[in-house]
Amino acid sequence: MSQSTRKIVVDTYGADLGEEIIVRGVLTALEEYPRLGAVIVGSREVFNKAIGESNIEKDRIEFIEAEDFILSTDAPTCVFGGRDKSSMVLALNTLKQREDCFAALSPGNTGALFVGSMCRLGLRKGVKAPVLSAAIPTPHDKWVCLLDCGASLSCTPADLEKFAFLGAEFAELAFGIPNPRVGLLSNGREENKGSELTKAAYTLLKKADINFIGNIESYDLLSEEVEVVVADGFTGNIMLKSVEAVGSAAIKVVERVGRELGIENSPEIEKIIDAMSHKFDLNIYGGATFLGTVKPLVKMHGCSTEATVKSCIEQLIRVENAVNQNSQQ
Amino acid sequence: MSQSTRKIVVDTYGADLGEEIIVRGVLTALEEYPRLGAVIVGSREVFNKAIGESNIEKDRIEFIEAEDFILSTDAPTCVFGGRDKSSMVLALNTLKQREDCFAALSPGNTGALFVGSMCRLGLRKGVKAPVLSAAIPTPHDKWVCLLDCGASLSCTPADLEKFAFLGAEFAELAFGIPNPRVGLLSNGREENKGSELTKAAYTLLKKADINFIGNIESYDLLSEEVEVVVADGFTGNIMLKSVEAVGSAAIKVVERVGRELGIENSPEIEKIIDAMSHKFDLNIYGGATFLGTVKPLVKMHGCSTEATVKSCIEQLIRVENAVNQNSQQ
Repeated sequence: MSQSTRKIVVDTYGADLGEEIIVRGVLTALEEYPRLGAVIVGSREVFNKAIGESNIEKDRIEFIEAEDFILSTDAPTCVFGGRDKSSMVLALNTLKQREDCFAALSPGNTGALFVGSMCRLGLRKGVKAPVLSAAIPTPHDKWVCLLDCGASLSCTPADLEKFAFLGAEFAELAFGIPNPRVGLLSNGREENKGSELTKAAYTLLKKADINFIGNIESYDLLSEEVEVVVADGFTGNIMLKSVEAVGSAAIKVVERVGRELGIENSPEIEKIIDAMSHKFDLNIYGGATFLGTVKPLVKMHGCSTEATVKSCIEQLIRVENAVNQNSQQ
Repeated sequence: MSQSTRKIVVDTYGADLGEEIIVRGVLTALEEYPRLGAVIVGSREVFNKAIGESNIEKDRIEFIEAEDFILSTDAPTCVFGGRDKSSMVLALNTLKQREDCFAALSPGNTGALFVGSMCRLGLRKGVKAPVLSAAIPTPHDKWVCLLDCGASLSCTPADLEKFAFLGAEFAELAFGIPNPRVGLLSNGREENKGSELTKAAYTLLKKADINFIGNIESYDLLSEEVEVVVADGFTGNIMLKSVEAVGSAAIKVVERVGRELGIENSPEIEKIIDAMSHKFDLNIYGGATFLGTVKPLVKMHGCSTEATVKSCIEQLIRVENAVNQNSQQ
């Protein structure tokens, strides 16, 4: 094992398709990135089954057995001072305590991850609460980071300003976009448009040391005019899920036209549907990143696949590489 | 002219494509609906030019000349006690005063229409402010009414309850859906999910005499599980515009795949793009209806076409017919 192996911590519990999918996704990433290591936290039986077939050097994979699992129905606060043997808490504690671990992934209970990111992992100086940021692909294969996507439902103007800083930093680290353009999600582009919250946030953002381009409407989310879109968690959540909703409705339209033309099984229709799924099924891009924590933490979609896991890990490797590069400069 | 001719009032000013498009759209509707009449308010020159080519019986079309026009940059409050000679105020006053007029359309300044709908047209008993409702087509050619779409940015739980009643009534009248299912737009389906506003509204809606099915997420907007979706005006506006945003991004994906396969001009690709434009270009369905006013008022999209105008009129005819039928029972 190389001295420079950096490890990702993976809580395997909570995915709709089961734990094994998550372990297999990690193995795929390890095959592609020879300097990556992983600490997998979950059920021993599942781990043994998945690892048995793999050729990965055993010293690049560690396993921590969990005796307890946080369910989706558990109260988010359960991880505050309890559930120490759960896969989620073990994963967060491992990420916090070990210098060789640089990030963590979990497909588990989002609320519990939110609470755990504060009370188990810890926040960066000046951050009151973590922010959930989703990276959404645009039609021309660029990215836009939407935050907050549901961590903080009630926000102050200062919260939105904080989101803008964290989002701009993340867009730069994860996607290599220098000085990313930041927009404030509102019901009109003019400065005087918006709710009381967004109007007050506009005033703060105008003075902030970021590349603030003003209000944007949801029309503009995918228009490639901005790389970061800031919203309170309620609005951001609605916006994020609408991308999947409309994308999936668009796929149904293509299927219907395919049937009408009698070409529903043609390679052309298949290719269009594939491309659209790839664009609007946010699962492919792996989930949302908690920003503002001492080390990055990703909440994978509940219905994560092997590809989701690999894509999440790749994003975190990019962030890690960018951080290392910056610290060496 | 039949005694039973009922007239629609049309303010022609404010469309991106010009006034003539609006007049022509009205003429198309008159051709199709022989018992419909229209009162057109706008510039004489434009009216004369458009009407010159038409075969519609002259007594089915009246014209009112406007000397003033509300610009998109005018303050919405300008119609409050002023601008009496503007096309918008003349249209609203006509609708209010004349018994033979049953509804009005305008592509003009939304804010001014909102103010005008209260101070010029008037509200139904028990309604504090009009609500903007958009009818969105679902993949299987059904409809969902989303309201409020931007008239009231700050709402109380009681406002959302009112929206639910008005939306359910409208879905029944305009689309013939008996006892329509009403959902509350939130960040999760569980009763305990949501902002302070939606959680309080949930409690009211649960007790209300409507077919309330609980929270829905934006995933579910087009899933045909609900016919009415209730939100505050800020959130509803974001949601509405995201349908167009993602729909237009989906069309770009189809175009790109078409180019990659070298079939960008094929009838198949054209048919898919047509079907998608038809589904996600809300302009085709004509705009948003102000609910809660004494007579229906529709704000047409700024970029209205002839088809938009006709589609708006058809929707209003359906409402009018349903109201008449109910009153005869």
